[in-house]
Amino acid sequence: MLLDLSASSLDITRAICDIPSVSGAEGRLADEIEEAVRAHPHLEVIRHGNTIVARTNLGRAQRVVIAGHIDTVPINGNVPTRRIAIEGEEFLWGRGTVDMKAGVAVQLRLAAELTAPIVDITWMWYDNEEVEASKNGLGLLAADRPELFQADFAILGEPSNGQVEGGCNGTLRAIVRTRGVRAHSARSWVGENAIHGAAPILARLAEYRAREIPVEGLGYREGLNAVRITGGVAGNVIPDLCEVEVNYRFAPSRSIAGAEAHVRSVLAGFEVEITDAADGARPGLDAPIAQQFLAAVGAEARPKYGWTDVARFSALGVPAVNYGPGDPHLAHHDEERVPLAQIEDVERGLRAWLSGA
Amino acid sequence: MLLDLSASSLDITRAICDIPSVSGAEGRLADEIEEAVRAHPHLEVIRHGNTIVARTNLGRAQRVVIAGHIDTVPINGNVPTRRIAIEGEEFLWGRGTVDMKAGVAVQLRLAAELTAPIVDITWMWYDNEEVEASKNGLGLLAADRPELFQADFAILGEPSNGQVEGGCNGTLRAIVRTRGVRAHSARSWVGENAIHGAAPILARLAEYRAREIPVEGLGYREGLNAVRITGGVAGNVIPDLCEVEVNYRFAPSRSIAGAEAHVRSVLAGFEVEITDAADGARPGLDAPIAQQFLAAVGAEARPKYGWTDVARFSALGVPAVNYGPGDPHLAHHDEERVPLAQIEDVERGLRAWLSGA
Repeated sequence: MLLDLSASSLDITRAICDIPSVSGAEGRLADEIEEAVRAHPHLEVIRHGNTIVARTNLGRAQRVVIAGHIDTVPINGNVPTRRIAIEGEEFLWGRGTVDMKAGVAVQLRLAAELTAPIVDITWMWYDNEEVEASKNGLGLLAADRPELFQADFAILGEPSNGQVEGGCNGTLRAIVRTRGVRAHSARSWVGENAIHGAAPILARLAEYRAREIPVEGLGYREGLNAVRITGGVAGNVIPDLCEVEVNYRFAPSRSIAGAEAHVRSVLAGFEVEITDAADGARPGLDAPIAQQFLAAVGAEARPKYGWTDVARFSALGVPAVNYGPGDPHLAHHDEERVPLAQIEDVERGLRAWLSGA
Repeated sequence: MLLDLSASSLDITRAICDIPSVSGAEGRLADEIEEAVRAHPHLEVIRHGNTIVARTNLGRAQRVVIAGHIDTVPINGNVPTRRIAIEGEEFLWGRGTVDMKAGVAVQLRLAAELTAPIVDITWMWYDNEEVEASKNGLGLLAADRPELFQADFAILGEPSNGQVEGGCNGTLRAIVRTRGVRAHSARSWVGENAIHGAAPILARLAEYRAREIPVEGLGYREGLNAVRITGGVAGNVIPDLCEVEVNYRFAPSRSIAGAEAHVRSVLAGFEVEITDAADGARPGLDAPIAQQFLAAVGAEARPKYGWTDVARFSALGVPAVNYGPGDPHLAHHDEERVPLAQIEDVERGLRAWLSGA
């Protein structure tokens, strides 16, 4: 089968959803995409593992990267796709429709169609986004071919309900520990209860009021939460250790060092071990190219809270936004489904901006 | 080998420690004990599984049960026994020396020796004390032969450093739960954090001041403690459930229903599920027979905090105390060891009381 990039975005979505491509098994879909884009002489095509890059070289003043991942989480009886209607609204139902093959389909169609966009475009379709970061096709490409990421702006087609979600919060995890002295619970006064010692940790987290921080035109709401707590040895032992895992989601104006300092200050007096951290991504929505994009697609800009691959662009100094069809709350859901109208809206928005119409 | 009950209590202790009898494998030791006590015509011997009962039938006005378990926790390179000295103090070292074969050895020697005690005596040596309650030889005997437990007083030879420890606290376990609403931690305000919700539970436990309650001549110190806490789904999810397991050790003057009401009152406003409870045991040290016992052995009476099988006697209306050689803190310890002087003290104390000397 040759993927027909002159078909509607809906038909392309169905076609690429019905080619299963769970993370680690994207080979066939990558082959189909490569073959389809190589048929278009205005695109230079580069293959890197199961990641396909296709780009125009028109000598435009500005270059934009537009990217999407081609893998999905595991299928659970929800392939092949079906068209369904709920209270009169039409959807394409099935694994990958939201996260994020509808977005990829729109990109594929426009890659083929737009032979003379007003900016040069580097399209990227990559593998292994849904699994550990070390396998991420975009990350591997950035490590090997950083020059491909030189751009003025980047758009990731992650589901955003057809709205523009800019940047993303950073994330930091830490273990907060209290220590005590083990004893038999029949003689509890001989010991010191580490779980009781964690009371002020939970109280500070419960009282904590997260701020909303304005960054380049968007307000980023933060959060500091316990995501796990463990303590206890046996039903008759006073515990000598309690561990609270906290997750701090911080605005992209803050560095990892600043985030760590904030967590240590909130939990001052306790043993804090930072276990994991990733920078956020600035949305860059105050740049002229971003303003032009927003005006052309006619979408409202919102902050993105969850960490996405836009942070990889931000780390390379490229402002990046998420813009794609589908409700992110339905990503990974067994009832994953994308409204047909959003596919059309995003296609129209991207075309309007890229063609200067 | 015939167990020689005319040997010293120390030698009997060594002999029965060197016959391994980890819970579930007491058969050989029970055989040796049965054979040895059957050689003494003043004793009526009853075998029930691996539990041996030997009793006098002298028509005395009062009857006393004196009991000890013959099983140990698993051996860990600490059998056979060794005699050691630490800073001039002599010990018998090895598994079972403290918990509780030195106590059993003293009982075996006196069972053989005391042909005409001033009270009738029912000696009980039972299996499976160190494992689940359903296997406990004393409990099984009480269920099948309750008439054997008719007595005015009971002594359990559990290690008590040669002092008399009366009764025991009761114990109750409960799970205290907080519930919330799960959400992605990047949008924590959409959810409700169940771990944060547990802050007041830990605060109340940390602030709780346990009372000491006088019961029949002894003061029982209570305790209310978290012994385990769990909560959390994943590192990026606001948790919807947190569970705190609490253990309340309560004075024997309190019923299980009263203990439950107390825990529910301390943790009012939270979901509390009682998972396990056992009554304590009243020491009965205000009874004349108990006063005579204390005077004769010359030991100081203290409250017992940990739950022991004395509660089985208390439940049958028989006041019961722990009285045996060895430091209970060394029970189950790989360096388990009993001071020789305590073996002799307990032998002398029991003989003095039982012979009316």
